[in-house]
Amino acid sequence: MKVVVAEPTGLCFGVKRAIRTMEEALEEKGRVFCIGSPIHNPQEVQRLVDKGLVVVEDDDRIPPDEPVFVRAHGISPDVHQRLQDKGARIIDGTCPFVRKAQEMAGRLSREGYYLVVLGDENHPEIKGILGYVEGPYLVVSGKKDLRAIDKIDKIGIISQTTQQESTLKELVSEAVGSAREIKVSNTICRATVERQEAVRRLAYKVDGIVIIGGHNSANTGKLFRIAQESGTPALWVEQADQLDGRWLSGKGTIGIAAGASTPDWLIKQLQQAML
Amino acid sequence: MKVVVAEPTGLCFGVKRAIRTMEEALEEKGRVFCIGSPIHNPQEVQRLVDKGLVVVEDDDRIPPDEPVFVRAHGISPDVHQRLQDKGARIIDGTCPFVRKAQEMAGRLSREGYYLVVLGDENHPEIKGILGYVEGPYLVVSGKKDLRAIDKIDKIGIISQTTQQESTLKELVSEAVGSAREIKVSNTICRATVERQEAVRRLAYKVDGIVIIGGHNSANTGKLFRIAQESGTPALWVEQADQLDGRWLSGKGTIGIAAGASTPDWLIKQLQQAML
Repeated sequence: MKVVVAEPTGLCFGVKRAIRTMEEALEEKGRVFCIGSPIHNPQEVQRLVDKGLVVVEDDDRIPPDEPVFVRAHGISPDVHQRLQDKGARIIDGTCPFVRKAQEMAGRLSREGYYLVVLGDENHPEIKGILGYVEGPYLVVSGKKDLRAIDKIDKIGIISQTTQQESTLKELVSEAVGSAREIKVSNTICRATVERQEAVRRLAYKVDGIVIIGGHNSANTGKLFRIAQESGTPALWVEQADQLDGRWLSGKGTIGIAAGASTPDWLIKQLQQAML
Repeated sequence: MKVVVAEPTGLCFGVKRAIRTMEEALEEKGRVFCIGSPIHNPQEVQRLVDKGLVVVEDDDRIPPDEPVFVRAHGISPDVHQRLQDKGARIIDGTCPFVRKAQEMAGRLSREGYYLVVLGDENHPEIKGILGYVEGPYLVVSGKKDLRAIDKIDKIGIISQTTQQESTLKELVSEAVGSAREIKVSNTICRATVERQEAVRRLAYKVDGIVIIGGHNSANTGKLFRIAQESGTPALWVEQADQLDGRWLSGKGTIGIAAGASTPDWLIKQLQQAML
């Protein structure tokens, strides 16, 4: 069996940077708190927990004056304020591209635009971004959700960094008919687009494609859907031991692609398991 | 034979206003100059010429201190300046929607956007608008023309007031992939959109559709193409005497639609001819 790994794939700049920052903090402080999973990959989180990471559900659970890591998805300004109020030493792992989306959310709403945010309203990145909005807004999953709003004078549009560009294009096109003026900040991260394109290219060259990444990772889920849409058989695993022998059998060439939060060591384990 | 007239159709707000302004000026001054056809309808222009309108090719041909009518399509600031320099008494018939597009062209380019103008570069409205641009720009007829530009930081988009909204939507969608930020001012006039939709609706209810309007009128041409795309037989005439008896014969119901520069009296003549 031949195995081909998508290029580029796996850890993006923002997650790499966040993990490095977190590891440095753990080495220095021994114990670091984080609200929610620092990255959407259970195996990598476990590795960091073993080094002293403490994951809490809510900022209420963090004792005063402790080091607190802000994950790549960012946090809203009010959570940031509450952390400062309790003397937390904040270590900021917010991805610079997410930071940009937060800034644009604030800027567009201050400029008087009704803000339309393409994304999943339950995703921590979106919750953080919405904290920066200073006017009316709507979170949409696609162009159909625009029907919820009447004709509006000025619509501003931003996106969760991990959305598909084709969905943003459709949304923006639809908005042209709903507003006199629209301003769009394409906050989709290039790493996301490139990883999605790599899966699309690879899927047509292989007999099956394995997507590896956390089942709680939005961007990994999108890679899986892109693979499925290609018509090539697709499998989503978190780690090598979830590989299905029956699924693999009879396939000459297998492609591997990994979400932006999947560490290299998990990809290597998967490759080893397929030898 | 049954005849159904599209609703709305014919003279738009801007052209009605321009003709009224022009007629008032002719009554007051007896002779008024205009650079190019004041509206794209030869029959209506002839009616105004009979009342004292003098159409010239170029502002050079206008003697000093004469009344000069600025047509609904507007003029560029440099032509305006040259007219003022020769003491012209300027009567401004610029359509308020075209004026808005001129203002947005200036504003977007001053704000640092690379300006993309959807329209026909040979149309007087576009020539006028381009005079307000203060930075780099590109006139495009659709999304394919965007390939001419490399990845750009900020793209501003406006449209000739008589373009199809579907073309603008496609263009804007394409631009999302070409720039970090895009700002779109939808300068397509509602009258244009409504007249196009009226033709689209009517075409499916009739056995043939007659579009009446100047062969030099861009918006009439678009109505004709929309009628053709519907699959219903379509005919484009400037006036009633161009009706083709063979084309009419055997058709139970005929639809009539008129460009935004076609005066009511030409539509009435056409209806009479079909009784």
